[in-house]
Amino acid sequence: MPKRVDHDERRRRIAEALWRIATTRGLDGASLRDVAAEAGISLGQLQHYFRSRGDMIIFALDHINELAGRRIRERIGALGDVPSPRAILRESVAEMLPMDDKSRSGNLVQIAYFMQAVHDERLRGHAKEGVPLLRGMFADQIRRAMDRGEVAADRDPETEAMLLICLVDGLTSFTLLDVQTPEQAMALAEAHLDRLFTP
Amino acid sequence: MPKRVDHDERRRRIAEALWRIATTRGLDGASLRDVAAEAGISLGQLQHYFRSRGDMIIFALDHINELAGRRIRERIGALGDVPSPRAILRESVAEMLPMDDKSRSGNLVQIAYFMQAVHDERLRGHAKEGVPLLRGMFADQIRRAMDRGEVAADRDPETEAMLLICLVDGLTSFTLLDVQTPEQAMALAEAHLDRLFTP
Repeated sequence: MPKRVDHDERRRRIAEALWRIATTRGLDGASLRDVAAEAGISLGQLQHYFRSRGDMIIFALDHINELAGRRIRERIGALGDVPSPRAILRESVAEMLPMDDKSRSGNLVQIAYFMQAVHDERLRGHAKEGVPLLRGMFADQIRRAMDRGEVAADRDPETEAMLLICLVDGLTSFTLLDVQTPEQAMALAEAHLDRLFTP
Repeated sequence: MPKRVDHDERRRRIAEALWRIATTRGLDGASLRDVAAEAGISLGQLQHYFRSRGDMIIFALDHINELAGRRIRERIGALGDVPSPRAILRESVAEMLPMDDKSRSGNLVQIAYFMQAVHDERLRGHAKEGVPLLRGMFADQIRRAMDRGEVAADRDPETEAMLLICLVDGLTSFTLLDVQTPEQAMALAEAHLDRLFTP
């Protein structure tokens, strides 16, 4: 079905045009017309793919979450056959932090979504959807570590998973603000993991 | 000098008009004209107090940081003569989290500044200025706790202080996004403090 593939490709291109706008001036500044211009297509063509600004933003958010999840899975895949829970958590955190220009842009887009989601119920539903999945994935690894005797038995995996997610979010903000370097942020995350991985 | 006092009051009123706009539609949407309208004064009157949009935003940011610092000091003052380090950290964290509508608004304004600061060097300099002060204050309390034998001697106070600041920032984001309730956010912060306050 080549036609279908082309349509998906076109939608992704539109999403990427939206991200470029979101990175530089936030989502507020992104009208359908602006996004069409940035994607190099006409407004009519864009409206063929997305009937409303809301539909376009939801698609772009799903697409960025999918790409982020894929990058984390690729990094974990590169660790070998049976990576340790700590290695999996470490690589996930490293992928989430703004360690280079590319992930810095990704983080800026997510913050632009976040700002919009705080005021928009439909977008909020979507924006927060990924958190329980990530928390579940982190909690599974912490449970595995407890089984291996690497994390103390009295820790609560769900609590520890959410603490790690919140910590990475804050580390990201203060790295984007130049309060600390990406390397300092990663060192702080490692210090937190050292404390978590105490039998 | 009653005239001087009136001027300060007028500046604060303008800052508060800017906050109301930032809370609902972000700082991007706040022109000098919009802020004058929101403050109920003419554009000319506003320009008497602030020569540029940048000056106005910097003043409003300083003012919000000053108010936040004052609220934390008041809460700590209410703890009595010699509050424990843990009580001081707990009250500071509770004041920083969006526990009610008022602090939720304050957090939204700070996020609006943050979004702007990522792209604006002058504002970034100002926005990050408060972090070393807060980190220093938290680190002092952690050192006091180590002297009292409440925190393990091998912890690094500056690292622990920054981890706590980043954690509170992330807890704030996910609370504003309705991923968790304010009470759940506070419970997570307490779980982190439990782990920190382990001799």
